[in-house]
Amino acid sequence: MDELRRRILTEGRNLGGGILKVDSFLNHQLDPELTGAMGRSFRAAFEVVGITEVSKIVTAEVSGIAPALATGMAYGVPVVYARKRRPITMPDTVFSTQAPSHTKGGVIELIVSPEYLTPPDLVLIIDDFLATGRTVDALADLVRASGATLLGIGCVIEKTFEGGRERLKHFGVPVVSLVRITEMDGSNIRLAP
Amino acid sequence: MDELRRRILTEGRNLGGGILKVDSFLNHQLDPELTGAMGRSFRAAFEVVGITEVSKIVTAEVSGIAPALATGMAYGVPVVYARKRRPITMPDTVFSTQAPSHTKGGVIELIVSPEYLTPPDLVLIIDDFLATGRTVDALADLVRASGATLLGIGCVIEKTFEGGRERLKHFGVPVVSLVRITEMDGSNIRLAP
Repeated sequence: MDELRRRILTEGRNLGGGILKVDSFLNHQLDPELTGAMGRSFRAAFEVVGITEVSKIVTAEVSGIAPALATGMAYGVPVVYARKRRPITMPDTVFSTQAPSHTKGGVIELIVSPEYLTPPDLVLIIDDFLATGRTVDALADLVRASGATLLGIGCVIEKTFEGGRERLKHFGVPVVSLVRITEMDGSNIRLAP
Repeated sequence: MDELRRRILTEGRNLGGGILKVDSFLNHQLDPELTGAMGRSFRAAFEVVGITEVSKIVTAEVSGIAPALATGMAYGVPVVYARKRRPITMPDTVFSTQAPSHTKGGVIELIVSPEYLTPPDLVLIIDDFLATGRTVDALADLVRASGATLLGIGCVIEKTFEGGRERLKHFGVPVVSLVRITEMDGSNIRLAP
């Protein structure tokens, strides 16, 4: 993902408090070519760690949808995005969990309908950021609650200094990130090689 | 979009009150192949009405993102999704408007950063549903407020009996829908030919 590294270094802005602004290609505006490449890169990275058979991609609205859809395209499998508010189209009984929000403050609820996440599913979780890992931790709990098998976790950008990878260790699955940020100090954003 | 018609007729459920549940492929779970086909169909339909040069796709979070991204992929142009809550990464001054929500009740705010919508932009608006047209109306107002040129409007599913197309007439641009539902009566969903 050389292009992703380049975009983070040229367009990313450290807003302080651990917040990286990448609205120009990930969180408000999307670059379709770059997004498509993210999906193919996730597939290639998961194949390296031995994950070849996948039946479903799971993410959380809003910013996870684009990289998750691209990953679904790369595998040709459906994508389920957990909702943060229950739409009236959902059945009465759902899988629901809570996670503290890093960028918005407070607690967010994540809701998945049992119609679309079932025990035979072989699941990859895809999200935009891996920071504290709380959102992905909650998503992985939802996947486990459904009886589906969690195979791996993929994040577009990991901030290695916020402990997310350690938080997810107990799931015992590979955690793949396309770019790892090791330091954000003023206007200086440092990437792992 | 024969496949989209088939999916609506076999998987769509009329929940009453004008609400069509298509969570299995559009609003909670996504079918990547079908979503990709939507993007290509929008491009083909806009070319029929003479729209060939497009520089940006605009949609609203959450359910617009997938068909908008697919359309951005079909054109190779960026996609901007209006936010419903202002993230801390946005500048102080933004384009903002309000629209009544059909499925959630109350009023939703739509916010776009002027960083990603500018006067030279040639814009297509893409959304999942065209019902009363209020969300798309608000999006089109945002595009106009930015000084960008609105070329056309595309919606995956139009419910022709809710007046959306009439509401959007004053913009004077082509309105394309991939499937038009003309009647929802009990379990009976009728599509325009």
